[in-house]
Amino acid sequence: MTQLPYSIVRLLPKAKPQVIRHGFPWVFANELVMDRRTKGATPGSLVVLEDADRRPLGLGTINPLSKIAVRMLDFDTDAVIDQAWFKAKLERALQHRDACYDEPFYRLVHAEADGLPGIIIDRFGDVAVIQPNAAYAEAMIEMIVAALVEVTGVSTVIKNGTGRARSLEGLDEEMVVVHGTAPDGPVPVQMNGATYMADVMGGQKTGLFLDQRPNHAFAAGLAKGGKVLDVFSHVGGFSLAALANGAASAVAVDGSAPALELAKAGAEASGVADKFETRHGDAFDVLEALGAEGETFDVVVCDPPAFAPSKQTAEKGLRAYERVARLAAPLVKEGGYLVLCSCSHAADLKRFRDASARGIGRGGRRSQLVYTGQAGPDHPLLPQLAESGYLKALVFRL
Amino acid sequence: MTQLPYSIVRLLPKAKPQVIRHGFPWVFANELVMDRRTKGATPGSLVVLEDADRRPLGLGTINPLSKIAVRMLDFDTDAVIDQAWFKAKLERALQHRDACYDEPFYRLVHAEADGLPGIIIDRFGDVAVIQPNAAYAEAMIEMIVAALVEVTGVSTVIKNGTGRARSLEGLDEEMVVVHGTAPDGPVPVQMNGATYMADVMGGQKTGLFLDQRPNHAFAAGLAKGGKVLDVFSHVGGFSLAALANGAASAVAVDGSAPALELAKAGAEASGVADKFETRHGDAFDVLEALGAEGETFDVVVCDPPAFAPSKQTAEKGLRAYERVARLAAPLVKEGGYLVLCSCSHAADLKRFRDASARGIGRGGRRSQLVYTGQAGPDHPLLPQLAESGYLKALVFRL
Repeated sequence: MTQLPYSIVRLLPKAKPQVIRHGFPWVFANELVMDRRTKGATPGSLVVLEDADRRPLGLGTINPLSKIAVRMLDFDTDAVIDQAWFKAKLERALQHRDACYDEPFYRLVHAEADGLPGIIIDRFGDVAVIQPNAAYAEAMIEMIVAALVEVTGVSTVIKNGTGRARSLEGLDEEMVVVHGTAPDGPVPVQMNGATYMADVMGGQKTGLFLDQRPNHAFAAGLAKGGKVLDVFSHVGGFSLAALANGAASAVAVDGSAPALELAKAGAEASGVADKFETRHGDAFDVLEALGAEGETFDVVVCDPPAFAPSKQTAEKGLRAYERVARLAAPLVKEGGYLVLCSCSHAADLKRFRDASARGIGRGGRRSQLVYTGQAGPDHPLLPQLAESGYLKALVFRL
Repeated sequence: MTQLPYSIVRLLPKAKPQVIRHGFPWVFANELVMDRRTKGATPGSLVVLEDADRRPLGLGTINPLSKIAVRMLDFDTDAVIDQAWFKAKLERALQHRDACYDEPFYRLVHAEADGLPGIIIDRFGDVAVIQPNAAYAEAMIEMIVAALVEVTGVSTVIKNGTGRARSLEGLDEEMVVVHGTAPDGPVPVQMNGATYMADVMGGQKTGLFLDQRPNHAFAAGLAKGGKVLDVFSHVGGFSLAALANGAASAVAVDGSAPALELAKAGAEASGVADKFETRHGDAFDVLEALGAEGETFDVVVCDPPAFAPSKQTAEKGLRAYERVARLAAPLVKEGGYLVLCSCSHAADLKRFRDASARGIGRGGRRSQLVYTGQAGPDHPLLPQLAESGYLKALVFRL
């Protein structure tokens, strides 16, 4: 037998080795023999996973501080996880995005589904933003960034070390340029015919969500010649796509003044500033105010932050989604469209759809459901984790 | 109180009137007081539905021969169901299709969700095909056709009275021209840049499925420059769209020789006949033969007929879907795409996805799920019946 170069961790007899063989990428802490050596392993170090009968299952990385104790990296237990290994994964990921998009604006790596557990890489042309949300990725960041630059040729790589995923892994918060120089202001991003401005150093509040692209495109198609209201607009995802595709006017509503500034800059860059208005304030307040004013629109979009980020908040979150639908429905013209989105893991499609339909009904309207959208193809899923498809965009006709 | 012009049927105390108030469009036979008058009602006649406390809920149509005893037509119990009533429904339906499509090829009426229970109308330019799958629609066909011609200006209307839905309503099989003259051969249909040939008088075997349009478009985008295998191709839905969008070559496989003839005529009309081949035979046999030949493709599509049309056939159907995936996976190049579709009501998304992923695994491949598609926006759903979204198109990257 080959001498294995990595230390060994072992599944408990109760754990099912076949799920790993079939491609499930995680081993939870309570499925592992937690001897002293395993407990004391350096977070992010490489291990060979064996089943309870000591048959090797593959190469993984361990983090004793995380509930996800082992993330699988390779079925070959002799694999060497070096720059060439990362390069091969990135090339494969790039090939898919090249097949999907004409321009280099996309999520290049969507973690487990792209064979790089816990790693997210968004590409905005010449600038890439990496989120190393697992200990091994943090430990090997230099190698990953070198491979990324080699494969894509980007001139700047930013490490975005913010967000909940990192704290679950015991990692620090950090936002830092790890290759090249920080961009001189917001980065222009081309999607669906519009130009968006993304403040890639600013974190979630002012960055850019790439996942809604197909849903932006669908809603924009319906908005031709019409009046659009884009609530929880962030940097103008739906409204700028609609204007670039022929909407007559759009109003963007958001609670973040910096996000609205970027939306305005995007409208400017897209050549549609004359048709674009912003309204700063609490989205619920603005919806109520518009209702009181009796204003109506051809297309109303509500793309709120995750109201139900966890199982504990699911019920409360669903009530918030229902309230959004109830307040938004009266603002839609007869025969117009209402786009309702949820990025909550804990509100599944059926429950979100039911809450939305209930809200529309309580808002005094009847509806047809004409479209159910998800994240774009640059956000692939492992079939084994496909229930995790978190993004839902429903288009109702009222 | 107004004198109601229609006879009255009443819900049993156990039935929930609020689901009707909230827009659920059906009353089942076991929810209705089945007195002698109700049992003897003429199929397709109009009735006012009341709750158990004799409060009117709306105007419907009754068919004592159907499990769906009452289909709701209007919340206004004084509504007159005449040509003008149908015209208003059709105008509203047309407005939505006009918002979605540049050319007049679409499902114009998708039954309950378009406010016309049991009625399907497909439009192929100047020709419309109506499926009156409920007794009232059969009874009022002349009025509906007159309204349809008035609203759309089509010169030919064909009544397609085939299919399982009609037998559930106690209606006869019949295929007949009800307005204008039968088209002189197959009708050209423009979708996704390709021209399809639809034999609108030939029924399901040679007609055209409009519902896959967005999924055709997505797969065609991935097929640029590539080799495509289109299994269960029917008249070439996926392959012609792929060729029209730059695929290098496509092979269409189907068990129906007339369907393949129409596919060839479509390839001719789309100007891609030189890149298009057909292979007539049992799809499973051809998949096995291609596997034995060691042939591979950039994109493989399998869009079989409903393997699980009913709950009783669900398990058997899922095994058939798994077998399709197992046989097709080895034909996909490394990094290529496998498109797997199901139009079975009884195989829900999760079960179909699991069966597909299992089949791919048994075919010796690993996969990412990059796309989950449904029927296009000309196939709207009632939110109350949204679980009935039967069409599922999954794109895996292997």
